[in-house]
Amino acid sequence: VPPAPPVIILVRPQLGENIGAVARAMSNFGLTELRLVAPRDGWPNKRALETASGADAIIEAAKVYPDFAAAIADIQVAYATTARPRDMAKRVVTPEVAAQEMSAALRIALVFGPERTGLENEEINWCDTLITIPTAEKASLNLAQSVVVVGYEWWKAACHPTQALHPSPDDNNVAPKADYQALFDHLETCLDAGDYFRTPTKKTLMWQNIRTMLLRGQWSSQEIQTFRGMVRNLWEQRSERK
Amino acid sequence: VPPAPPVIILVRPQLGENIGAVARAMSNFGLTELRLVAPRDGWPNKRALETASGADAIIEAAKVYPDFAAAIADIQVAYATTARPRDMAKRVVTPEVAAQEMSAALRIALVFGPERTGLENEEINWCDTLITIPTAEKASLNLAQSVVVVGYEWWKAACHPTQALHPSPDDNNVAPKADYQALFDHLETCLDAGDYFRTPTKKTLMWQNIRTMLLRGQWSSQEIQTFRGMVRNLWEQRSERK
Repeated sequence: VPPAPPVIILVRPQLGENIGAVARAMSNFGLTELRLVAPRDGWPNKRALETASGADAIIEAAKVYPDFAAAIADIQVAYATTARPRDMAKRVVTPEVAAQEMSAALRIALVFGPERTGLENEEINWCDTLITIPTAEKASLNLAQSVVVVGYEWWKAACHPTQALHPSPDDNNVAPKADYQALFDHLETCLDAGDYFRTPTKKTLMWQNIRTMLLRGQWSSQEIQTFRGMVRNLWEQRSERK
Repeated sequence: VPPAPPVIILVRPQLGENIGAVARAMSNFGLTELRLVAPRDGWPNKRALETASGADAIIEAAKVYPDFAAAIADIQVAYATTARPRDMAKRVVTPEVAAQEMSAALRIALVFGPERTGLENEEINWCDTLITIPTAEKASLNLAQSVVVVGYEWWKAACHPTQALHPSPDDNNVAPKADYQALFDHLETCLDAGDYFRTPTKKTLMWQNIRTMLLRGQWSSQEIQTFRGMVRNLWEQRSERK
């Protein structure tokens, strides 16, 4: 029995037929859970169901989320599939490496951005690792084709595990993203109050880099609580000094 | 520099948009040569060009052939991609294994059948090896998605060659299919004349098995000439005895 398959998250998908094609692609590789973040044309979508032919069950079970944060709240490790490299201190791997390192014990998501524009930096920042599909100079895989490649590699690794695919001892400890979300809300409030970011124009990038740094540790819920305790402690000292 | 890419042959493709999508998929993985066998809606095809966006050059350079035999005449090794297993004594490999064993020195074709129906046994029989994409119980990859998977594996192997991808000593000796075509025409004429196949209903399968057997050796042109010499010799003896 292959390990629990990763969740596919489509962020702001545009065309219903592309969502249907993704569902059909998923069914080829044993992927069953589809999440949609703010699909442009609403939900349910007639075209999606028509195009999914044979994978109707995936479309019917798809869950819709108002924003990306909600869609990844229970996810422990998220991979973002991006066509072009981003200037972010994130690990970048091939679909093959990603598939081989996915642990059966973790709640994993494979995240795909909207047609043409791709994911926003804000969303990529939430993801632990980036997947780039190796292509010739000009990559123009569509949404479902990207899901085919990543799903195909997952299926190969799941059916014929090599080194990974067994849980490492600490896997179960990786916090769901909701814990990080709460931490970041907490931290940002404190930093804003102290005018840490100074110029608003610089905040976006500074804050992004900080979150990248903190996410990289793949902390446990306990560790996040510890960190928040430190933040709270520092914050209260600061208030007292005022 | 990666080795010369394999030729993509689409047999009796139906929808122009699927041909365009295949061209676009090809461009991602450095595949440039497209051949079409009897495309249903004729050629050139406006929809194919529209869908290819960015891969127009592949569509414009595509060559059309009246039948499969003409399309593979100069091919040394042909791989057929099939969704379901066929009852034929042919080697079956994964896209990964196929990609790793493709020699740069050979003229190779990747053959894909029409939407829905797939290749006919007659066409599969011409191919040296079958490729089956590993999928969950129900495979429903469309034409371009199948090209994506096989092209992706070729590109991976071409960019990061492992064991194979260097010519083995005898690679240049593998005869083009045209030599086998001439041999089979010759042999079939002789066998028919001698009423070898007896009942016409059994001929299809018997003849298919013979060709499979003879193709498997991947003979050189010289070896085919030798074999034809033997056939001719036997045939002439037979005529004399009459």
